[in-house]
Amino acid sequence: MMKMTYKGLAKKLLEKFKVGIWDDVQVCLDDGSIISAIILPGPETDRYIYLKLRNGYNVAYAVTRIKSIKKLGSISPKYTLPKMKVEKKKNLPPIALIHCGGTIASRVEYATGAVAPAFSPEELSHAIPEIFEIANISFVELFNIFSENMRPHHWIEIAKRTAREFENGAKGVIITHGTDTMHFTSAALAFMLENLPGSVVLTGAMRSSDRPASDAATNIIASIRFAFSADIGESVIVMHGTPSDTLFYVHRGVRCIKLHSSRRDAFKSIGIGPLAVIDEGGCRVLAERYLKRRAQNELRVHPFFEEKTALLFLYPGIQPETIDFLVDRGFRGIVLAGTGLGHAPEYIMGSIERAIDEGVIVVMTTQCLWGGVFMNVYENGRKLLKLGVIPAHTMLPHVAYVKLGWLLGQDIPNNEVRRLFMENLRLEFVEKEPISAF
Amino acid sequence: MMKMTYKGLAKKLLEKFKVGIWDDVQVCLDDGSIISAIILPGPETDRYIYLKLRNGYNVAYAVTRIKSIKKLGSISPKYTLPKMKVEKKKNLPPIALIHCGGTIASRVEYATGAVAPAFSPEELSHAIPEIFEIANISFVELFNIFSENMRPHHWIEIAKRTAREFENGAKGVIITHGTDTMHFTSAALAFMLENLPGSVVLTGAMRSSDRPASDAATNIIASIRFAFSADIGESVIVMHGTPSDTLFYVHRGVRCIKLHSSRRDAFKSIGIGPLAVIDEGGCRVLAERYLKRRAQNELRVHPFFEEKTALLFLYPGIQPETIDFLVDRGFRGIVLAGTGLGHAPEYIMGSIERAIDEGVIVVMTTQCLWGGVFMNVYENGRKLLKLGVIPAHTMLPHVAYVKLGWLLGQDIPNNEVRRLFMENLRLEFVEKEPISAF
Repeated sequence: MMKMTYKGLAKKLLEKFKVGIWDDVQVCLDDGSIISAIILPGPETDRYIYLKLRNGYNVAYAVTRIKSIKKLGSISPKYTLPKMKVEKKKNLPPIALIHCGGTIASRVEYATGAVAPAFSPEELSHAIPEIFEIANISFVELFNIFSENMRPHHWIEIAKRTAREFENGAKGVIITHGTDTMHFTSAALAFMLENLPGSVVLTGAMRSSDRPASDAATNIIASIRFAFSADIGESVIVMHGTPSDTLFYVHRGVRCIKLHSSRRDAFKSIGIGPLAVIDEGGCRVLAERYLKRRAQNELRVHPFFEEKTALLFLYPGIQPETIDFLVDRGFRGIVLAGTGLGHAPEYIMGSIERAIDEGVIVVMTTQCLWGGVFMNVYENGRKLLKLGVIPAHTMLPHVAYVKLGWLLGQDIPNNEVRRLFMENLRLEFVEKEPISAF
Repeated sequence: MMKMTYKGLAKKLLEKFKVGIWDDVQVCLDDGSIISAIILPGPETDRYIYLKLRNGYNVAYAVTRIKSIKKLGSISPKYTLPKMKVEKKKNLPPIALIHCGGTIASRVEYATGAVAPAFSPEELSHAIPEIFEIANISFVELFNIFSENMRPHHWIEIAKRTAREFENGAKGVIITHGTDTMHFTSAALAFMLENLPGSVVLTGAMRSSDRPASDAATNIIASIRFAFSADIGESVIVMHGTPSDTLFYVHRGVRCIKLHSSRRDAFKSIGIGPLAVIDEGGCRVLAERYLKRRAQNELRVHPFFEEKTALLFLYPGIQPETIDFLVDRGFRGIVLAGTGLGHAPEYIMGSIERAIDEGVIVVMTTQCLWGGVFMNVYENGRKLLKLGVIPAHTMLPHVAYVKLGWLLGQDIPNNEVRRLFMENLRLEFVEKEPISAF
């Protein structure tokens, strides 16, 4: 529960102007500018006042810069926000927003300064009321967890719930999700949901939604604009395309990865350009090839995952026993992230051979990320192929992991798993990498 | 051993003009152009003639395009190449070239079409005689293995041999090495060799040296030009900077990675720009901060590595038993490549805690590659810090692995290992990532 956390000079300033947290105010600064905002609970501080601006952004101003504060009104403290009554507008598209957690809905714990999951979708919608101007949005609170804690069984729940929203008539489904493992979930949803009648858009924020310069609001707005405007029926990720606030990229869910731990444009499409771009000019599809929306009754859900699937990065010095251990533990599939064109150290080949002999499906990807595996070029790759290792083409290591676990989770024989693994089911393969895509 | 492999039309054409493999010839093409080259043994073919051009490149021309061939002379077949007698020139800098293998010295096995390690450094120098115009080069054949088979004990041998070459007066040491794990070796040499009196330059090729468009020759020449021109004393990687042949980047050995499995510009500096650029205009240092050459007698060699060190990529669904297994096997160090700012799934924290309780040093890096770990931001990171996980700052996962194994290999107590791990010993940390470096 939030409480008043200002002290010292900051507290005195608020008392002087008879205002407090959650008050709607006009703040006059030392340069003469006037800001309309809501006073937020700050971290325990005597030097700054935290404000939520009308555009959804939060800022902090030093006490010394504030000349006066005028109270306009007050909103209820966030933890008792009333349900927002939004009237459905006839001409707006129906969009479902499934909330799964992450920074997009987290807040700073003022006691520790760390970010913890907290805001409800209700609060989120209060923060970005403009979304109700562009779509009829229905909210679903599925979980509220950080994405590092997502597990395959969560992917299955999200897939099922997403399908239900489409069946209920949604034109698109937005999933708010932590960014850490968002690219795993986007791949899982791509495989689990076949013939999508609209796009499944994962989005999140690299800055939490009650911090200054949060990207939560802008990412959600861009996601909604994409979800109903394009004729694409794919699982995608929509996030900032540049460090600025004016351009967003739509990444194919099976072809992207989080490549930066803090920048707002952390996600990159790998081996292909972005699927679409969203900016002030609207939403433009850039890809020549994509999966089109299908009729609603064509949607198929395949909510399966074999948890006895592993992803293993290879490196000089890796112990072959790591593979033996997985075999001994009854694993059914191992995705290797090898080096270069799909190579493994000679000295672990005995363990790979044993794994395959015991019926484990072993797949090779490249930790280079770009370029894919081509195991016929070098002696090493040819030896691995001879052992029965399956080359994952241009599939990214994490996508191959998700795909293999998904196939093994279905009740089909191993040779069928192998056949389907090599098929380009959701455009997870890149046929020809454009020079500009690296 | 190579043998004449042309047949059919190709064989007839060669017979018609009384030429054969290893002949130095002038070839007249159907467009009137004339090419000076050496006839190479081709794969068993009746449609193409394979030629080595004067610039070191190999090309193949269709038999139908060749109007005439004129013999100029002949070189001995490569497998009996005589030792090249190169006179030392007084004004040229002494450079050592340590050969370790990889594509830069491999050839196509015509029986299978696969590439196998084959060419000797002797043969390599015959292929690029221009290197003797710019340096006095001494050759060392240390190994001839593909880099996927490199192990920490190889790094130690390379470090020791490199030190010896500097002690013998080399101004710089070039190491020809497979590209797959080159960035591991460059990091290992950075830590093992302190106060370098010149640069240690790892270079290789993305196309084997007897294939058309090989980058072997151009990379070696660029490496040598860098090695004696800059006042940098670091372990670096020199490879193509763009897909073209005119620009080469020098990457800091502890700050780069192979990010493409096939392009010639596969290596990228991460979180910083390239250290230097080499083009027709010469060699220009771009970095503001770098390690300068030191006096020869300051060089220190630390040839150590603890093989009970592991690198573990985390992902949704990873089994905590993977960590238990490493602890049970007596591992002393585990580098986690976590998600985002340095996070791990909650459900594996028990295993991490146990590892630390049993004296294992556990380090956190980010699989995002760019941006580094900042474990104070989220609840999850703070929990891990509380357990005793060491945040690896901006260190790349593979660099943290090499550094931790190197520290653990030395006879120093664990708290000293922890202290040194957190120190920026070889500029492996990035203080401030430029916007353009992502």
